[in-house]
Formats: sequence, structure tokens, C-alpha cells
Amino acid sequence: MAKVKGLRCRECGREYPAEPIHVCEFCFGPLEVEYDYDLIRNTVSREKIERGPKSLWRYVDLLPVEEPKVGLTAGFTPLRKAENLGKVLGLKELYIKDDSVNHPTLSFKDRVVSVALSKAVEFGFDTAACASTGNLANSVAAHSAQAGLNCYVFIPANLETQKIYGSLVYSPTVVAVEGNYDDVNRLCSEIANELNWAFVNINIRPYYAEGSKTLAFEVAEQLGWRAPDAVVAPAASGSLVTKIWKGFKELRMVGLIDGKLPRVYGAQAEGCSPIAQAWKEGRDYIKPVKPNTIAKSIAIGNPADGIYALAVTRESGGEWETATDEEIIEGIKLLAETEGIFTETAGGTTVAVLKKLAQRGVFRPDEVVVVYITGNGYKTMEVLEGHLKDVVRIKPTLADFRDKILVRVP
Amino acid sequence: MAKVKGLRCRECGREYPAEPIHVCEFCFGPLEVEYDYDLIRNTVSREKIERGPKSLWRYVDLLPVEEPKVGLTAGFTPLRKAENLGKVLGLKELYIKDDSVNHPTLSFKDRVVSVALSKAVEFGFDTAACASTGNLANSVAAHSAQAGLNCYVFIPANLETQKIYGSLVYSPTVVAVEGNYDDVNRLCSEIANELNWAFVNINIRPYYAEGSKTLAFEVAEQLGWRAPDAVVAPAASGSLVTKIWKGFKELRMVGLIDGKLPRVYGAQAEGCSPIAQAWKEGRDYIKPVKPNTIAKSIAIGNPADGIYALAVTRESGGEWETATDEEIIEGIKLLAETEGIFTETAGGTTVAVLKKLAQRGVFRPDEVVVVYITGNGYKTMEVLEGHLKDVVRIKPTLADFRDKILVRVP
Repeated sequence: MAKVKGLRCRECGREYPAEPIHVCEFCFGPLEVEYDYDLIRNTVSREKIERGPKSLWRYVDLLPVEEPKVGLTAGFTPLRKAENLGKVLGLKELYIKDDSVNHPTLSFKDRVVSVALSKAVEFGFDTAACASTGNLANSVAAHSAQAGLNCYVFIPANLETQKIYGSLVYSPTVVAVEGNYDDVNRLCSEIANELNWAFVNINIRPYYAEGSKTLAFEVAEQLGWRAPDAVVAPAASGSLVTKIWKGFKELRMVGLIDGKLPRVYGAQAEGCSPIAQAWKEGRDYIKPVKPNTIAKSIAIGNPADGIYALAVTRESGGEWETATDEEIIEGIKLLAETEGIFTETAGGTTVAVLKKLAQRGVFRPDEVVVVYITGNGYKTMEVLEGHLKDVVRIKPTLADFRDKILVRVP
Repeated sequence: MAKVKGLRCRECGREYPAEPIHVCEFCFGPLEVEYDYDLIRNTVSREKIERGPKSLWRYVDLLPVEEPKVGLTAGFTPLRKAENLGKVLGLKELYIKDDSVNHPTLSFKDRVVSVALSKAVEFGFDTAACASTGNLANSVAAHSAQAGLNCYVFIPANLETQKIYGSLVYSPTVVAVEGNYDDVNRLCSEIANELNWAFVNINIRPYYAEGSKTLAFEVAEQLGWRAPDAVVAPAASGSLVTKIWKGFKELRMVGLIDGKLPRVYGAQAEGCSPIAQAWKEGRDYIKPVKPNTIAKSIAIGNPADGIYALAVTRESGGEWETATDEEIIEGIKLLAETEGIFTETAGGTTVAVLKKLAQRGVFRPDEVVVVYITGNGYKTMEVLEGHLKDVVRIKPTLADFRDKILVRVP
């Protein structure tokens, strides 16, 4: 595959062939996909992309897959101008990139999994697996069903019921590990060393992570081929933030956009914010933490890409901010009440952080700001208990309607 | 508005201006939007549509709205070839039109509500309302938030918790009526006579219902501007089936497609199948029933458009079929396990009916068949309890993984 040159260690720069490996044998640094950008510059164009499928595969020239095998309809989700939320926050050009309706499993994970499992099929694996906080498990299970792969998903035992059903329905083996995500991830790394399974976020990780770049590609195209001034995204492992940044950089490198790249702002839940804490304390290393937050989908205490995510905010001129559990719920409600979009706790975190950043004045009122909503509220419904208005119960009569409802109408 | 000539009674043909009215004053027949197709034929083209927004508004020339006001990103959902499910059913050209990821509230109701509330804003209403089995309430609440309208949604008191939260989050007044959907609907009709509220499926119904035509428009465009040989869709009030049919007919009338129109097959839950029963008994009238099914979103015992839906199957050469609650759950699982798509009970009904029809041989193996998946499985999660594989719980150790999981791997 000419466009992919191979893998390269992010730490020591050593080169590897494009195989299902993820760690440098010499320095244990993570491997990343290297492209031949000169070649890509000559083959890619705005027109070619616009003629492509209405999915993330329109950007296949910038992805490490020869031909999509699975997840053919993932991505290309709406980018919508947020007039109402913008007014509340004093932002005239606020946009929501809405992966809460990603296809098929309602989170941005459908992007990375489409790429990872297309690659896994290319490599000849017959079994897919993952360590997951829930969304990834849904997506791996769904795409494995589509691809006819055996499937094992590993989740923390305390996960939201909705997300467990949202995996089980595809009939994978769901393994609930007694511990938090970091325990699950450690166990899966050990298993990946022993078995020939495609763990999408372990041995297939270099390919998997590239899928997140499409969140930059789509935003740039949907804005009419330009980068926004700033983006706000949630961080768990930190990978998403680094790949959004890489995506915008690549677009400029191959000549699809020009001008300034966006400042990248990272959002974490206060109860699990190892990257944001490092930022606030001016550290360039991560101190692992024990997660304690309702935002379980981003509760990674020992984030694999934390230091690279920190570097992105430094390089781009962004910042990190956190939200408490209460602020996360307020964030979910604020987005729903202003824009009619129902997001899960990760999205609530991102909206809450956007609000704090706006109030601190980090955005000029006329800057183009894009907020990434990465998952759907139906998946973390239970956190809303006790935080919503009451349902009014009435008999099916006009009299009861008048007594219980009409009297309250202003 | 030149393209809309006005409203016309479906029964006696009497004409009315395009106002927020829905019933003929003379014969009590339902009113329907009448277009000037000669004018539309001269203004619409495939190229113009293809250049339009990536939403249902690309078909605005065939909708009763001058300019979209709300729901700007609704519609244009994936149409995916269902290779795996097709193999199971012996269909080489089976496609899924997947509204389980419709924007923003994960059901086809985002289509009708975008159109209804854009029209309500055009009419100058300040309050939106609806009688709903759940999906419609979600969508009306979300779009009202977007449009800044006051919002009252009326639902049967026994609705799934998920769907109630999925409305409450947008902060409307949710009124739980003690009774079934038909009781809710009757009450809302009385209220609509007294208050100046835009009940999307009552006084705005003629405009609202037109939104469903986009399910035909999109399928035709996504198939490369041709009609399929057959479509299978669920029926509650019966409106969806009639509007899909109307959509295909209109496309041919204005010259966007030619050739044969599809046979239209209707799916109902056995426990609430007044239209299918009429079909099987050769009646052209509906006997209302008392709903008793897990498919609550299509549990309408007295379907307003039942007789028109019957007429569509007669005219198009289609049929009606039903699914038991058990078959509905099997339908949900079959779609998930083969295609990685998680649908709610209405979708389970449609898949179960598709399967029965295929087994009865109503489709030739090479016919293009489209199945409409109208809602998301996260909304009716609770019906799956006891029907899925068990989660395997393990300690975070390789030893426990070997003992509990690896021993079972074939």
C-alpha cells in the first residue's frame, strides 16, 4: 500500500512495517502510522472527496486502509450551527459536531472501529476484541456482527446497564472485569500478548486511532474547507485530541486547507482528570489517578496518550479544563434545552468545559468554535434520575387536563 | 407559496386554503396537501437536489414549507446493503434504510416533526404539542427546544422509562395520560379544539405527515434514482405507508424517476394489528382493537389512516403481515446479529415481517427490497431482559480469564 510507509515509534523514531504491532521493541514507545504525503497530495482533491461516499470513507486516501471492509456508513455526521447555545455563551459562530447520531452505535467510536476492523480483516484476524468503557464495546460488537468476526468485549463490571445491553444485543461474549477501566486495559494487554485476537485498541491501536482524524476532516469540509479557530473535545486516553490535531495538520500538509490551525481545548471530568491536572500544574508527565466520576466513558485514570495530548494543547495554543459531576449534568441539560441534542456524560463534560472556557473569555465572540459531541444521552440515561422535571399524570379527560395542566400555563 | 395549491379533503375532494386545519368541515374527511406538480416539474432536478443540504431539506421543493426553520439536519440517513441478512433470507438485493440514527432523536419522527414545526413557526404558533407513543414526544420536545417554542407532550402513562427521559431532558411539560395511545389521542383532539397550540399530529397533521415522503425520496436517490421493487414498513396510524407510496408516486410524476413503483408491504404487531386484520379478512374498513403488545411505538388501536394504508397495499400489489411479541424480539436480535444495527420493537416487527414474507416467497431472490428501520433499540431496551446472553464476570487476572473464558473458546 503505497500511501502508508509503515509504522514509526513516537519516542525514538524507529521504523516498522505496517503490521499488527503497537509498541516499539526498543524503547516501548507507541507506534504511529506514517504516510507518504507527497504521494497523497497528488492523488487527493476536494472534488474527489466531495464525490465520495457519504461516510468517513470519503477520506480513505488519508486512512491506513486499502479498501473499507466494514462500517461502510460510519461518520459524516451533522455539523450544526448552535445559535441558541451560542447566544447563551456569547459566541456568534459556535458549531456542534454531532457524533451522538453516528452510525450504527451512536458514538465517535464507530469511526475508529470501522478503520480498525477493516484493517483487522485485511490482516486476516478472525476474532475482534477490546477493552472498553462501553461505547467502544457497542461499536466493536456491532461491527464484528457485520463482518462475521468472533467478538469478545471487556468492560468494567460497574458499567451502565444501557451500555451493556447495547453490546449484548449483537451477541458477542461480554466479559465484565471486576475493576476499573485501567484494570480492564491491563488485563487485555496481557491477553493480547498471548492470543491472536485483534484487540482494536491494543495491537490494532495504531490503525484504530487514525479513524479519529475524520472528525477534523469532516469539520473542515463542512465549514467549506477551512479550519475553525478553536475546537473543544473530551479526553479519556487523550488519543482523540491528538488525532483531531493530526487531522487538521494533514489537511494543510496535503493542500486541502490553508491558513491557521485551530487551538485545541481538552475537557475532562473533575473526578478523573489526570491530563488536565498535569496541565494545571505545568507538568509534562501524567500522574495516574483512581477514577471517581459519573462520566464513565472518559474515566481513564492512566491515559495512554496523555503526554501527547498535553503536547497538542501546548503546540496549538489551547488549554485544559474540568467539570464536576454536577456541572456535567447541567451540561447535558444545557445542550438539550438550547439545541435539542441529547448527549451522554462525556458530552455533558465537553459542554460544561466549553461554558467555563467561554466565561473565562478564551474565545473572541466572532471566532469559529467547534464543540465535539461524541456520544448519545440514551446510553447514560440513569445519571439524570432526580435531575429532570416531574411527569404530570392525568386522567384522559378535559376536566383533569384543565385542573392539572392548564392552570399552570403562564 | 406557489408550489402548494392548498389542502384537499381525501374523501369529498373539497378544497381549503393552506391553513392549520386538518378535517373537512363538510364530510369530516382528513385534509391533505395539494401541490402544483407542473410547476414543481419545471423547478426540480436531480442535480439541484444533489447540490442541496445533506438533510431531508434537499427535497424542499416537494415539501409544504417555504423555508426550513427547525430540524435543519434531520433525514438523509444511511441506506445500506444488507448482505448478511439478505443471505439468511435468500435476498440478493436487500437494503436497510436506517432511521435508527436519525438526527437528533433517533427515529423517523425527526422527519415529520422538522416539517411540522417549520410550518408551525411559519403559522406563528408559540406552543408545540403532540399525542405520542414516545418517539414523537422525543422529537417534538427536541425540536421545540431548538425553535424556542413552549412544549407539551402527551404520552400513555405506561410508556418505557427510556423514552420518557428522552423527552424530559429537553424540559417540556410531559403529561402522562392514564390510558392507551387512543385515549391520549382523543384527549389531545379535544384540547386542540380549545387551545391555539400546534399539535403536530392533529391540527398540523396535513403538513406533518408530508415529512414521511422523504423516506421514499432518499431511498430512490440513494439507489441511483430508481424505485426498489418492494418496500416493507411498519404501521401504527398507517400514515407512514401512505406517504412512502405518495413519495415514490410524486418522484415519477415530476420526472425524477421512471419505471415501476414498489410494492408496499405493511408490518404490524400481532397484539395491535387492526390494519393487517382488515387486510386478512378482506375488509376495506378498520375495526378498532385494544393494543396488547411490547411494540408500544406502533400500538395504535384505532389508526387514523388505516383505510388509506389498506388502499396503498391494494394499489401497489403489496400485503400485510404481523409478528408476535416473541417474533419481534427475535427480529431485533436477527438484525443486530447479522447487520450490527440495534433497532427498537417497531423495527423488530418490521424485520420479523420481512422474514415471514421472504419465507412465503413474495419476493424474487434478485428483487431490490428495502426495509425501513424507523427507530433505535436504546429506546426499548427493557424488552430484551431475559433474552440476551449472560455477561461473564471475572477478576482482573489472566488466570481467571483462562478459567472462565478461554476454556469456552471453540
